[in-house]
Amino acid sequence: MTETLVPDVNRADCPSRAILEHVTSRWGVLVLAALLERSYRFSELRRHVGGVSEKMLAQTLQSLERDGFVLRDAKPVIPPRVDYSLTPLGQDVATQVHALAHWVESKVPEVQKANATYDDARV
Amino acid sequence: MTETLVPDVNRADCPSRAILEHVTSRWGVLVLAALLERSYRFSELRRHVGGVSEKMLAQTLQSLERDGFVLRDAKPVIPPRVDYSLTPLGQDVATQVHALAHWVESKVPEVQKANATYDDARV
Repeated sequence: MTETLVPDVNRADCPSRAILEHVTSRWGVLVLAALLERSYRFSELRRHVGGVSEKMLAQTLQSLERDGFVLRDAKPVIPPRVDYSLTPLGQDVATQVHALAHWVESKVPEVQKANATYDDARV
Repeated sequence: MTETLVPDVNRADCPSRAILEHVTSRWGVLVLAALLERSYRFSELRRHVGGVSEKMLAQTLQSLERDGFVLRDAKPVIPPRVDYSLTPLGQDVATQVHALAHWVESKVPEVQKANATYDDARV
Protein backbone atom coordinates (compact mmCIF):
# COMPACT_ATOMS: atom_id res chain seq x y z
CA MET A 1 0.00 0.00 0.00
CA THR A 2 1.20 3.49 -0.80
CA GLU A 3 0.39 6.48 1.33
CA THR A 4 -1.42 9.26 -0.49
CA LEU A 5 -0.24 12.61 0.77
CA VAL A 6 -3.01 15.17 0.68
CA PRO A 7 -1.69 18.73 1.06
CA ASP A 8 -2.52 20.14 4.50
CA VAL A 9 -1.48 23.64 5.55
CA ASN A 10 -1.67 22.59 9.18
CA ARG A 11 1.29 20.25 8.74
CA ALA A 12 4.54 22.14 9.29
CA ASP A 13 6.28 20.01 6.61
CA CYS A 14 3.62 20.38 3.90
CA PRO A 15 4.77 22.24 0.76
CA SER A 16 1.47 24.16 0.79
CA ARG A 17 2.72 26.00 3.88
CA ALA A 18 5.56 27.71 1.97
CA ILE A 19 3.28 28.65 -0.94
CA LEU A 20 0.72 30.14 1.45
CA GLU A 21 3.50 32.15 3.07
CA HIS A 22 4.64 33.53 -0.29
CA VAL A 23 1.17 34.78 -1.23
CA THR A 24 0.36 36.11 2.25
CA SER A 25 3.73 37.72 2.94
CA ARG A 26 3.67 41.44 3.70
CA TRP A 27 4.79 42.35 0.17
CA GLY A 28 3.37 39.31 -1.61
CA VAL A 29 -0.21 40.38 -0.84
CA LEU A 30 0.36 43.95 -2.00
CA VAL A 31 2.24 42.97 -5.17
CA LEU A 32 -0.41 40.44 -6.21
CA ALA A 33 -3.22 42.91 -5.48
CA ALA A 34 -1.46 45.62 -7.54
CA LEU A 35 -0.83 43.31 -10.50
CA LEU A 36 -4.50 42.33 -10.57
CA GLU A 37 -5.26 45.89 -11.63
CA ARG A 38 -2.60 46.08 -14.39
CA SER A 39 0.94 45.11 -15.30
CA TYR A 40 3.76 47.15 -13.79
CA ARG A 41 7.40 47.95 -14.43
CA PHE A 42 9.66 47.32 -11.45
CA SER A 43 10.17 50.99 -10.60
CA GLU A 44 6.46 51.79 -10.96
CA LEU A 45 5.54 48.90 -8.68
CA ARG A 46 8.07 50.06 -6.13
CA ARG A 47 6.44 53.51 -6.06
CA HIS A 48 2.94 51.98 -5.89
CA VAL A 49 3.61 49.68 -2.92
CA GLY A 50 4.52 52.12 -0.16
CA GLY A 51 7.51 51.24 2.00
CA VAL A 52 8.93 48.31 0.03
CA SER A 53 12.69 48.28 -0.49
CA GLU A 54 14.24 47.43 -3.83
CA LYS A 55 15.66 44.23 -2.37
CA MET A 56 12.40 43.03 -0.82
CA LEU A 57 10.44 43.81 -3.99
CA ALA A 58 12.94 41.87 -6.11
CA GLN A 59 12.80 38.90 -3.71
CA THR A 60 9.00 38.97 -3.61
CA LEU A 61 8.67 39.09 -7.41
CA GLN A 62 11.21 36.31 -7.84
CA SER A 63 9.40 34.06 -5.38
CA LEU A 64 6.02 34.74 -7.06
CA GLU A 65 7.57 34.12 -10.48
CA ARG A 66 9.10 30.83 -9.31
CA ASP A 67 5.71 29.69 -7.97
CA GLY A 68 4.11 30.39 -11.35
CA PHE A 69 2.00 33.38 -10.27
CA VAL A 70 3.93 36.20 -11.94
CA LEU A 71 5.36 36.59 -15.45
CA ARG A 72 8.58 38.55 -15.88
CA ASP A 73 8.94 40.01 -19.35
CA ALA A 74 12.33 41.58 -20.07
CA LYS A 75 12.04 43.68 -23.24
CA PRO A 76 15.20 43.76 -25.41
CA VAL A 77 15.27 47.55 -25.52
CA ILE A 78 17.64 50.31 -24.44
CA PRO A 79 17.28 51.29 -21.65
CA PRO A 80 16.25 47.83 -20.34
CA ARG A 81 12.59 47.45 -19.51
CA VAL A 82 11.04 44.68 -17.41
CA ASP A 83 7.28 44.25 -17.12
CA TYR A 84 5.58 42.14 -14.48
CA SER A 85 2.10 40.68 -14.91
CA LEU A 86 0.00 37.80 -13.57
CA THR A 87 -0.31 34.31 -15.02
CA PRO A 88 -3.81 32.76 -15.01
CA LEU A 89 -2.88 30.97 -11.75
CA GLY A 90 -1.66 34.29 -10.36
CA GLN A 91 -4.92 35.98 -11.32
CA ASP A 92 -6.78 33.34 -9.33
CA VAL A 93 -4.82 33.98 -6.14
CA ALA A 94 -4.56 37.75 -6.70
CA THR A 95 -8.35 38.00 -6.93
CA GLN A 96 -8.54 36.50 -3.45
CA VAL A 97 -5.86 38.62 -1.79
CA HIS A 98 -7.12 41.78 -3.53
CA ALA A 99 -10.60 41.16 -2.07
CA LEU A 100 -9.06 40.50 1.36
CA ALA A 101 -6.99 43.72 1.24
CA HIS A 102 -10.03 45.79 0.29
CA TRP A 103 -12.17 44.10 2.94
CA VAL A 104 -9.54 45.07 5.52
CA GLU A 105 -9.52 48.68 4.27
CA SER A 106 -13.31 48.80 4.65
CA LYS A 107 -13.16 47.49 8.24
CA VAL A 108 -10.55 49.89 9.64
CA PRO A 109 -13.08 51.86 11.75
CA GLU A 110 -14.56 48.66 13.26
CA VAL A 111 -11.13 47.28 14.08
CA GLN A 112 -9.99 50.57 15.59
CA LYS A 113 -13.09 50.55 17.82
CA ALA A 114 -12.27 46.98 18.90
CA ASN A 115 -8.66 48.03 19.63
CA ALA A 116 -9.86 50.88 21.85
CA THR A 117 -12.31 48.63 23.74
CA TYR A 118 -9.60 46.04 24.29
CA ASP A 119 -7.03 48.58 25.46
CA ASP A 120 -9.52 50.37 27.77
CA ALA A 121 -10.34 47.10 29.52
CA ARG A 122 -6.65 46.65 30.36
CA VAL A 123 -5.80 50.11 31.73
CA MET B 1 -11.51 72.09 3.91
CA THR B 2 -10.79 68.90 5.73
CA GLU B 3 -8.91 66.00 4.18
CA THR B 4 -10.83 62.73 4.15
CA LEU B 5 -8.46 59.84 4.74
CA VAL B 6 -9.56 56.77 2.85
CA PRO B 7 -7.79 53.62 4.08
CA ASP B 8 -5.22 52.44 1.53
CA VAL B 9 -3.06 49.35 2.12
CA ASN B 10 -0.48 50.71 -0.29
CA ARG B 11 0.35 53.55 2.10
CA ALA B 12 2.99 52.44 4.58
CA ASP B 13 1.41 54.57 7.33
CA CYS B 14 -2.20 53.40 6.83
CA PRO B 15 -3.68 51.49 9.78
CA SER B 16 -5.12 48.95 7.32
CA ARG B 17 -1.57 47.75 6.71
CA ALA B 18 -1.16 46.47 10.28
CA ILE B 19 -4.57 44.77 10.27
CA LEU B 20 -3.79 43.06 6.96
CA GLU B 21 -0.53 41.84 8.45
CA HIS B 22 -2.29 40.39 11.50
CA VAL B 23 -4.75 38.36 9.41
CA THR B 24 -2.16 37.25 6.84
CA SER B 25 0.64 36.46 9.30
CA ARG B 26 1.96 32.89 9.18
CA TRP B 27 -0.04 31.87 12.24
CA GLY B 28 -2.89 34.35 11.86
CA VAL B 29 -4.07 32.67 8.65
CA LEU B 30 -3.95 29.18 10.16
CA VAL B 31 -5.63 30.19 13.44
CA LEU B 32 -8.47 32.00 11.65
CA ALA B 33 -8.96 29.08 9.24
CA ALA B 34 -9.07 26.60 12.15
CA LEU B 35 -11.56 28.68 14.16
CA LEU B 36 -13.87 28.87 11.15
CA GLU B 37 -14.43 25.14 11.55
CA ARG B 38 -15.10 25.19 15.32
CA SER B 39 -14.03 26.79 18.60
CA TYR B 40 -10.83 25.53 20.18
CA ARG B 41 -9.13 25.44 23.53
CA PHE B 42 -5.59 26.81 23.54
CA SER B 43 -3.88 23.43 23.82
CA GLU B 44 -6.08 21.86 21.14
CA LEU B 45 -5.36 24.73 18.78
CA ARG B 46 -1.66 24.37 19.41
CA ARG B 47 -1.84 20.69 18.42
CA HIS B 48 -3.98 21.48 15.36
CA VAL B 49 -1.69 24.16 13.91
CA GLY B 50 1.53 22.26 13.27
CA GLY B 51 4.75 23.94 14.30
CA VAL B 52 3.37 26.88 16.27
CA SER B 53 5.08 27.64 19.59
CA GLU B 54 3.10 28.43 22.73
CA LYS B 55 4.44 31.98 22.68
CA MET B 56 3.58 32.65 19.02
CA LEU B 57 0.11 31.16 19.40
CA ALA B 58 -0.58 33.33 22.45
CA GLN B 59 0.65 36.46 20.61
CA THR B 60 -1.39 35.62 17.51
CA LEU B 61 -4.59 35.04 19.49
CA GLN B 62 -4.07 38.22 21.49
CA SER B 63 -3.59 40.30 18.35
CA LEU B 64 -6.70 38.78 16.70
CA GLU B 65 -8.68 39.35 19.90
CA ARG B 66 -7.55 42.98 20.09
CA ASP B 67 -8.63 43.54 16.47
CA GLY B 68 -12.09 42.17 17.27
CA PHE B 69 -11.79 38.94 15.24
CA VAL B 70 -11.47 36.41 18.07
CA LEU B 71 -13.40 35.95 21.32
CA ARG B 72 -11.54 34.67 24.35
CA ASP B 73 -13.81 32.95 26.84
CA ALA B 74 -12.14 32.04 30.15
CA LYS B 75 -14.41 29.62 32.03
CA PRO B 76 -14.34 29.96 35.85
CA VAL B 77 -13.60 26.27 36.37
CA ILE B 78 -10.84 24.19 37.90
CA PRO B 79 -8.60 23.45 36.04
CA PRO B 80 -8.86 26.75 34.10
CA ARG B 81 -10.36 26.45 30.65
CA VAL B 82 -10.13 29.03 27.88
CA ASP B 83 -12.08 28.70 24.65
CA TYR B 84 -11.37 30.70 21.50
CA SER B 85 -13.97 31.37 18.82
CA LEU B 86 -14.68 33.89 16.06
CA THR B 87 -16.71 37.08 16.30
CA PRO B 88 -18.99 37.87 13.32
CA LEU B 89 -16.22 40.15 11.95
CA GLY B 90 -13.74 37.30 12.47
CA GLN B 91 -16.01 34.88 10.59
CA ASP B 92 -15.98 37.27 7.63
CA VAL B 93 -12.21 37.39 7.40
CA ALA B 94 -11.74 33.73 8.34
CA THR B 95 -14.00 32.68 5.47
CA GLN B 96 -11.64 34.46 3.10
CA VAL B 97 -8.36 33.12 4.49
CA HIS B 98 -9.82 29.59 4.83
CA ALA B 99 -10.74 29.66 1.12
CA LEU B 100 -7.27 30.97 0.28
CA ALA B 101 -5.54 28.24 2.33
CA HIS B 102 -7.58 25.51 0.67
CA TRP B 103 -7.02 26.99 -2.78
CA VAL B 104 -3.27 26.86 -2.10
CA GLU B 105 -3.52 23.22 -0.97
CA SER B 106 -5.31 22.37 -4.21
CA LYS B 107 -2.63 24.04 -6.35
CA VAL B 108 0.46 22.39 -4.83
CA PRO B 109 1.12 20.19 -7.89
CA GLU B 110 0.85 23.14 -10.30
CA VAL B 111 3.15 25.28 -8.18
CA GLN B 112 5.68 22.46 -7.81
CA LYS B 113 5.70 22.08 -11.61
CA ALA B 114 6.32 25.84 -11.95
CA ASN B 115 9.13 25.64 -9.38
CA ALA B 116 10.82 22.84 -11.36
CA THR B 117 10.50 24.73 -14.66
CA TYR B 118 11.94 27.87 -13.08
CA ASP B 119 14.84 26.03 -11.46
CA ASP B 120 15.65 24.02 -14.63
CA ALA B 121 15.93 27.22 -16.66
CA ARG B 122 18.57 28.51 -14.25
CA VAL B 123 20.89 25.45 -14.00
